[in-house]
Amino acid sequence: MRFLLKNCSILATENGEFRLLRNAFLGISGAIIDYIGEEKPSSAYDSEKDMGGKLLAPGLVNCHGHTPMVLLRGIGSDLPLQEWLFDKMMPIEDRLTAEDIRVGNQLALLEMIACGTTSYSDMYFEPQTAVENAIDAGIRANLCRPVQCFDSSEKYSENIRAKQSIELFRAFNGAADGRIRIDFAIHAEYTNFPHIVEAYSADCKDMGSRMQIHLSETKKEHDDCVEKYGKTPAEWFRDLGTFDSPTSAAHCVWVTESDMDILKLKGVSVVHNPTSNLKLGSGFAPIPKMLEMGINVTLGTDGAASNNNLNMMEEMHLASIMHNGYTHDPILMKPAQVLKMATANGARLQGRDDTGSLEVGKKADIIAFDLDKPHLMPGFDLMALLTYAAQGSDVCMTMVDGKVLYENGEFFTLDEEKIRYEFNAALKRIYG
Amino acid sequence: MRFLLKNCSILATENGEFRLLRNAFLGISGAIIDYIGEEKPSSAYDSEKDMGGKLLAPGLVNCHGHTPMVLLRGIGSDLPLQEWLFDKMMPIEDRLTAEDIRVGNQLALLEMIACGTTSYSDMYFEPQTAVENAIDAGIRANLCRPVQCFDSSEKYSENIRAKQSIELFRAFNGAADGRIRIDFAIHAEYTNFPHIVEAYSADCKDMGSRMQIHLSETKKEHDDCVEKYGKTPAEWFRDLGTFDSPTSAAHCVWVTESDMDILKLKGVSVVHNPTSNLKLGSGFAPIPKMLEMGINVTLGTDGAASNNNLNMMEEMHLASIMHNGYTHDPILMKPAQVLKMATANGARLQGRDDTGSLEVGKKADIIAFDLDKPHLMPGFDLMALLTYAAQGSDVCMTMVDGKVLYENGEFFTLDEEKIRYEFNAALKRIYG
Repeated sequence: MRFLLKNCSILATENGEFRLLRNAFLGISGAIIDYIGEEKPSSAYDSEKDMGGKLLAPGLVNCHGHTPMVLLRGIGSDLPLQEWLFDKMMPIEDRLTAEDIRVGNQLALLEMIACGTTSYSDMYFEPQTAVENAIDAGIRANLCRPVQCFDSSEKYSENIRAKQSIELFRAFNGAADGRIRIDFAIHAEYTNFPHIVEAYSADCKDMGSRMQIHLSETKKEHDDCVEKYGKTPAEWFRDLGTFDSPTSAAHCVWVTESDMDILKLKGVSVVHNPTSNLKLGSGFAPIPKMLEMGINVTLGTDGAASNNNLNMMEEMHLASIMHNGYTHDPILMKPAQVLKMATANGARLQGRDDTGSLEVGKKADIIAFDLDKPHLMPGFDLMALLTYAAQGSDVCMTMVDGKVLYENGEFFTLDEEKIRYEFNAALKRIYG
Repeated sequence: MRFLLKNCSILATENGEFRLLRNAFLGISGAIIDYIGEEKPSSAYDSEKDMGGKLLAPGLVNCHGHTPMVLLRGIGSDLPLQEWLFDKMMPIEDRLTAEDIRVGNQLALLEMIACGTTSYSDMYFEPQTAVENAIDAGIRANLCRPVQCFDSSEKYSENIRAKQSIELFRAFNGAADGRIRIDFAIHAEYTNFPHIVEAYSADCKDMGSRMQIHLSETKKEHDDCVEKYGKTPAEWFRDLGTFDSPTSAAHCVWVTESDMDILKLKGVSVVHNPTSNLKLGSGFAPIPKMLEMGINVTLGTDGAASNNNLNMMEEMHLASIMHNGYTHDPILMKPAQVLKMATANGARLQGRDDTGSLEVGKKADIIAFDLDKPHLMPGFDLMALLTYAAQGSDVCMTMVDGKVLYENGEFFTLDEEKIRYEFNAALKRIYG
């Protein structure tokens, strides 16, 4: 089955750089892009879809989150961090059932797909529910069961989370034609002990998986680690072998210069979470420096409890302006750079080199923007429009593997009404 | 003519604080709110409008901008500030005709009204075009002809802009039942000489108008003034009598502690422009400190050339998180505070005490939000939803003086198709 998207602008990639085509065509064969050009292709397609002048762009990759936390969106917003976390978040999370988590993840999928996310990485309890949802929804996902340990006498063989993580990997890694990836995950340094991290990291390497971690999100976390171990969290993970697998490190707000050298040397990808870092008062990650060093920097929303949405367009917007303001340099972050962070760099973090850009031979993970709106006129510089002026609601189509998941308010793989109904039922169970 | 909005939540104000009503009614008599309550009013209304569960909130007040600069949206985004300003912005602005400016303002009105702005303050050339547009569009506007002077030998009586400003005030102040206000305006310290500012400020005071200025936007501007005059821009304006009229000062990024004492003492309102200050690398205005001091702090978008949209929901979002990130305090800015900045504080800056909140006796400047969307569930804390999670596109109705200007994508006072056509024609004239 081959079909042709016509009458569109295309934010294509050539030799690693964006190139904009106007009045162009994009051909898809099965799940793969087989043509991009301003000339109509000479070969025959089974069907054509008129895109009405829309802009096609690579799907957005949300590289860090805790999707089911949409169940906690807006709870305790005005409380100090410790009260918010210990008196609100944790007691509620403790009573979430697998069904609550399944439905929370589904609501998050509606939200993410509607504003252009085609692939996401997630870290939460009951990840098998997210696996099933992602298979059904048609989205790409790197899922995991994050390891924690609060008892230093616990043996690695006794750690239930590590066991579950490995079982999940064996059961589902590569499912749905590779749309599902199971990553390994260590929640963070401050929620673990070295012997667990070391053994689990060795298993990750042996099994050829990827690793997700939180790294130096807050100053306290970073400083406490230095005081406790005489090394930074990045040094701690490196020394325990975690970085011997391809790793994605979320936040990295307080990493030192030598930490950044480690990240660069070990090929660790960094997930920048602009909204979460600002809202929670974590601070400004040294993103421009890491980009300059050639570290693979990506974008994520974090969970809705600390954001409070899952809108990658907002993260792009923030990433494109907040560092300018912080360093007093108005041209520090460029639109093309930010768009790469949200697409190709994310694909690289997820180990999905066949996605993340619009090129012949890549998977057809494509989103369309309706730019025919007052706030997006004039349309001279489309990359500047996408990063500075567009909203999540300007995404009008989301496609993964050549399959339309969402178009003009309608979902084709998810039953929006059923999900809303079940989400409200879950809220009643949780909050009474 | 009295009509009743029913089946809605209402973000009302009581004794200066927000109070949320659910399943409530809001009655309007002519242009005035005459009922707010959870009980159906006993008196008769000519008609009822079922709001379908939407949230009614006070209209947003955009307190600083240069609306016709939508004509320059996205131009030269990647250039250093000086090149951007002198090689791109200024040469283009030089060749704008009154017709270009009229159409640019109209496109900006479409954008602002569609995302909930019911009143705005603006500073640009050819303001009579904005006056006419605002009268027709039904929006509230504080407009002005900003004074500049680049020749120190010019006498006040020779300054054409000052003359035009006063003529504009005489011709249009209070037009359209008070929807149109003509402010006085001094572009900035660095674009003027003391004798002009002093004489013009005296005229402003004599005529009982209000004043708009730019104040300490960049470090260079602030430091240059101290070097040149031995005083800060705030001290300079104070000493020249500018603050003897009710003044709104845009940006205030680099104001000192004693400058803030001056602003407080003289009752100067401050316009915080989050996106512009970040994007242009201007820095972080000491907003939390000014709020703590009781200074009237409001929000603005600035012009689209340095933003690049006119979306007050984005400014609220940024104002609610950027200062937390900068000071490492996750509960510094509260949703209710940010909503006040965008509404009641803005009304106070504009000298419009009969607007800015939903209370009986106030003007019916009302916007409605459609919160029935995945990214706005659950709906427990509506103020947190509005500041952290909502987008401009979640505004589904905009009403000024009891008249619906916009609802569900449709404009009732502006001819969207004609404006788009004329805007594209203006682009052809400007850019060829």
